[in-house]
Formats: sequence, C-alpha cells, structure tokens
Amino acid sequence: MGRWQPDARGRLQLAALELYLEHGYEQTTVSEIAARAGLTERTFFRHFADKREVIFDGQDEFRAMFVSAVAEAPDDATPLQAVAAALHGAAAQFEPRRPWSLQRQRVVAANPSLQERELIKLSGVATAIAAALRDRGVGEPTASLIAQAGMGVFHVAFARWIADDNTRPFSEIIAESLAVLNGAFTL
Amino acid sequence: MGRWQPDARGRLQLAALELYLEHGYEQTTVSEIAARAGLTERTFFRHFADKREVIFDGQDEFRAMFVSAVAEAPDDATPLQAVAAALHGAAAQFEPRRPWSLQRQRVVAANPSLQERELIKLSGVATAIAAALRDRGVGEPTASLIAQAGMGVFHVAFARWIADDNTRPFSEIIAESLAVLNGAFTL
Repeated sequence: MGRWQPDARGRLQLAALELYLEHGYEQTTVSEIAARAGLTERTFFRHFADKREVIFDGQDEFRAMFVSAVAEAPDDATPLQAVAAALHGAAAQFEPRRPWSLQRQRVVAANPSLQERELIKLSGVATAIAAALRDRGVGEPTASLIAQAGMGVFHVAFARWIADDNTRPFSEIIAESLAVLNGAFTL
Repeated sequence: MGRWQPDARGRLQLAALELYLEHGYEQTTVSEIAARAGLTERTFFRHFADKREVIFDGQDEFRAMFVSAVAEAPDDATPLQAVAAALHGAAAQFEPRRPWSLQRQRVVAANPSLQERELIKLSGVATAIAAALRDRGVGEPTASLIAQAGMGVFHVAFARWIADDNTRPFSEIIAESLAVLNGAFTL
C-alpha cells in the first residue's frame, strides 16, 4: 500500500458493518472487508484480531468508562448516584455515534454468537462496576445489586435509544429509566 | 440394556456432573458419562441431545416457573411485587437442590462457553418476565426494567446462596437482596 492511510481503522469498521448487514456476519470474509475498505488483509490484521473484534472494538474502554465514572463520583454520592453518573457519562459518549450503534445492533441481533458475546461484555461491566463500588467502601450485596440494576437500566435504555422511531437523546432515556425504576421500588 | 432403569435421567445427570468436575467439561465424552451411569450411549441420547443439555436440562421449566408466578400474582400486586413473588417461588424450588446447584455452578464457572449459555438463559427469562408483566397491563419501559432488575437480584442472590460458607435459605437471601435494592432506590 505504501501511501499513508487516513483512519484505516474507521474505514475497516464501516466496510465490515456494511458487509455484515448486506451479506450476513457469518458469510463475510476478512478479505472482502479489506477489499471494500480499499485496504489489504494485512492492514486489517494490524488493527483487528478477527472479524468479531470489529464489532467489539473499544470493549476495554467501554468498561473503563463506567469504572472511572463510578470512582470519580463525589464522595457523598450514594452507590446508586455513582452508577447513575456513570450511565449518564456513557450516554454522552454514545450519543454522537448513534448511526454506528444502530447498525452494529442490527448485526448483533441477527447473530446468536454475537449476542452471547454482548451479554458477556455487559456482565463483565457489571462485575467491574461492583468492584469500583466496593473500592468506594460499598459493601456486598449492595455493590453487586446496584451494579446489576445499573447494567439492566443500560440494557433497556440502550434498546430504546437505538429504536428506529426514537428521537430522544440517550441521557433523557437513562434519566427516565432510573426514575421509573425508582418509582417501582418506592411504590 | 433390556431391563427397566429407575431414573436413568437422574443417574446420567449425576454421572455427567461428577465427570465434568473430575476431568473437565470439555474432556468428558458422552461414552464416559453413560459408562459411569451404567447405561448405554443410546440411553443417554434418548434423554439429552448432547452433553451441554445435561447442564441446561429444565431450562424451559425454569422460565415457565417465573412466567406463571408473575401471571398468577394477585391483581393488585405492583410489578415489583409480582416479580418478587416469582423470585420467592424460584427460591423454594431451588432450595432442596442446593447440592446439585452448587456442583453445577462449579462446572459452569470453569467453562466460558457454559457461562455464555447461562447468561443467554437468564436474559431469555428476563425477556419472558417482561412479556408476562405486559400481559398484566404493565407498560414499557417499566416491564423490561423491573424484569431486568429482578433477574439481577436472582443472579446476585443465587451466587450468595451457593457460596461454600452459606447456611441461609435462598428465600431469605432473595428477601434481603430486594430490601437492599429498595433501600438504595429510596435513599
């Protein structure tokens, strides 16, 4: 290839997502992804270990984003407030990437093995949030229960945010979801 | 085998679990499971499609138990009360089977592909509970949020119940978990 490639990574991701949606995830090869992006397979493998990694790129940053938001919440924040702050932080990060998230979700929804991986990812984030809460001095089972509830809110709110007919910002849906859950518990 | 086998299914399950714990899930063959149970491979396949099914036997009943408990909750029960009733029903069903649950959990914890399947199972139950709540007239996102929170409680409470040093009944741990979450939301 010789010449410098601006954002080869981003081009590979878009090409992969296009092909996964057009032909199906299983049917798409790395060779096809590279060709669609106008790059070589070798370049693909410089950025991603395999075609699944394209979908789960940024997983570590995703978890770290929640963990650091929980850690950085004010000292007097309740465990739920710390997790709520992390959810709002995540919503702000996701907001500008809605078109990507929407297409990515279509690919995941069409493929059971990707759905499994997605659930593992969210479960791992819940575990990491629980650890971050314990680091703030929150005991068990509170830490794990709040972490699980928080990821449950993320899961439901995310699905609503990327629904075809949604026009509301992610943070608004997060706030509504937390309020609904709060109302359910105080009834 | 010719002669009638009392509870061949149960013997196969125990034999499988023993072998999975002794030699690892991946390393164990159906032939070994049948031999340990004193049965033929053919008998194994009359009861289970494959060795993974032994671990996830009763999955449909597990989901149905939650769904029917939610459906049968009193008309004036709040969504959370209906799910709490389902969790207590599940706890009562699980209680006498703690030794099995404990060993099963060890096998699942040692095998990532079984963990994925377990998460898919719990996710499917959450989806089914949400549908059962909607059938009671509960709107969205309340139905999905309560269902997710309920399965989060189940997940955390289950882990505590089968902890080596636990001596408390499952239902007590469920009640405590719901109270903790309630406290977190009303803070």
